[in-house]
Amino acid sequence: MKFATLKNGHRDGSLVLVSRDLNSAVSLIDHVPTMQCLMETWAQWEAPLEALYQDLNDGNCQQAFAFDSSLVMAPLPRSYQWCDASAFLNHGELLQKAFNLPPQAEMETIPLMYQGAADDFLGARDDIRLPTEDHNIDFEGEFAVMVDDVPMGCSSTDAAQHIKLILLLNDVSLRGFIQREIQAGFGFLQAKPSTSFAPVAVTPDELVDGWRNERVCLPLNIEWNAEWFGSANGEEMNFSFSDLIAHAALTRKLGAGTIVGSGTVSNRDTRKGSSCIAERRALDMIQEGKPKTPFMSFGDRIRMEACLPDGGSVFGAIDQYIVQENVNV
Amino acid sequence: MKFATLKNGHRDGSLVLVSRDLNSAVSLIDHVPTMQCLMETWAQWEAPLEALYQDLNDGNCQQAFAFDSSLVMAPLPRSYQWCDASAFLNHGELLQKAFNLPPQAEMETIPLMYQGAADDFLGARDDIRLPTEDHNIDFEGEFAVMVDDVPMGCSSTDAAQHIKLILLLNDVSLRGFIQREIQAGFGFLQAKPSTSFAPVAVTPDELVDGWRNERVCLPLNIEWNAEWFGSANGEEMNFSFSDLIAHAALTRKLGAGTIVGSGTVSNRDTRKGSSCIAERRALDMIQEGKPKTPFMSFGDRIRMEACLPDGGSVFGAIDQYIVQENVNV
Repeated sequence: MKFATLKNGHRDGSLVLVSRDLNSAVSLIDHVPTMQCLMETWAQWEAPLEALYQDLNDGNCQQAFAFDSSLVMAPLPRSYQWCDASAFLNHGELLQKAFNLPPQAEMETIPLMYQGAADDFLGARDDIRLPTEDHNIDFEGEFAVMVDDVPMGCSSTDAAQHIKLILLLNDVSLRGFIQREIQAGFGFLQAKPSTSFAPVAVTPDELVDGWRNERVCLPLNIEWNAEWFGSANGEEMNFSFSDLIAHAALTRKLGAGTIVGSGTVSNRDTRKGSSCIAERRALDMIQEGKPKTPFMSFGDRIRMEACLPDGGSVFGAIDQYIVQENVNV
Repeated sequence: MKFATLKNGHRDGSLVLVSRDLNSAVSLIDHVPTMQCLMETWAQWEAPLEALYQDLNDGNCQQAFAFDSSLVMAPLPRSYQWCDASAFLNHGELLQKAFNLPPQAEMETIPLMYQGAADDFLGARDDIRLPTEDHNIDFEGEFAVMVDDVPMGCSSTDAAQHIKLILLLNDVSLRGFIQREIQAGFGFLQAKPSTSFAPVAVTPDELVDGWRNERVCLPLNIEWNAEWFGSANGEEMNFSFSDLIAHAALTRKLGAGTIVGSGTVSNRDTRKGSSCIAERRALDMIQEGKPKTPFMSFGDRIRMEACLPDGGSVFGAIDQYIVQENVNV
């Protein structure tokens, strides 16, 4: 199944079920009005929604309407929890090598993960509004999962059953703050403005063979200003999404609707490109002695999409612009 | 005004207005059913609720019932954002001195702040359920504010008007994870299980002269197993709550219901005691060469309260026990 949230003037939007080909949708307002509601009542709605989804895909749903991905909010427009990992070790290793950073202790056994701001997620076509280019604007292409209620101490094995939906996101980052915030040890705050999500969140079966070992084994295609930037595959993730959920739940339960992210998708084969500018700059440094690739400018366009081998778009595309917000800074 | 959220079997509970003396309450279910709803519609409800509050305090509210603080959830049982600072520099300085930690760069000009988990706040009388004592269980007494919508780039001067409610909280911490998580730079995740809040959230005028310069200028009285542990005053906060809001909003807007915390309340006068065990252990180290005070055990009781000079309890008391959660760890 595929789900989207349409703008309706309210903070939580209106949940719709979207056809596999992303061409049509049906409102769920009379059943499960919002994505948060769906995550809290998943067991109750899974079977009837599967039947409705079948009808929608077969063209037998009378209430169906054309799905317009320019009208979406994030699938979950605001969440009570957003935990983002850095589960592709290749990414961190490249940055360490390029900039002579100290190695992370236990990085191969304990995932790096931070709490992210979850009160203001952006839709796939929303502008990314930021105060200044001087903060070194970057994108980060990631996959993520959304869970139902996870009990404290949930094992990695048990965590798999709590993965209900998979998402594609742009973890917008301001690199100018990263070094200070990492050194302070308190994690990212000013470095991580609002995060953007692809139009639809999908059940794991929508990935067909692309969902293996609780990893999204598909290339994440990124175009920056209409030029290819990367198509790194999620299969190289060093920790599975189940591992990440178990890490987050070690000392506390996780509320339904918690989103757990992979961190920047990164592959060892440099021909796959990168999923963020910071990594490309690390490769510049390693290959040419200095970081050549600039950060983003106002007016820049960023596009992210993941497709099945047959070309079908799994999540729809993130396709958005960087725009200056008028603030007194 | 004072507000509490009563348990009603739903995740967001039921909002009530509580009398100044904490003896009676009136349901707001027909107007603003939840605290999140109140924070999103504050401007609309402030005046009529002030009138109702007057009647409640005067004993002229026919729908009033006895307020039982054993039935509360956190005032906001789950939030879309919880940003916690470390705004009492004395606390960090003591830990640095005791354990030879490297000094934080710019600590006097840029507040330390982390994103906290906000999906599962505990009520004032809820048990604190944790998997093992081996994680070094600690409490942290803090004050916090709750805001309405804050625009990106909000100045410290403008931030004051967004402070709608003030809270008292126990930022439960697992010290066994702190060092690794700070060194990793990604902030606190396993080190910060669910946070507890005092029964009522109050408007700043309820503090009378105790609200000055956007600081809670009242002692935070802490008893651990019925013995005095500290009564540090919030007036020594090095950054005001307005400063903290402006820090959090530099690169993004903050959604209504965002909670911003002070960090452990800490005073330079050691006769005021401490608001967490970690600081007491730092003082042990400085004064006696080794940390003597143990961390918490299952069955321990922690009580926190802040009172006006006339003895009136501002927020009601946090009064809870540490209990073992049965998990497979």
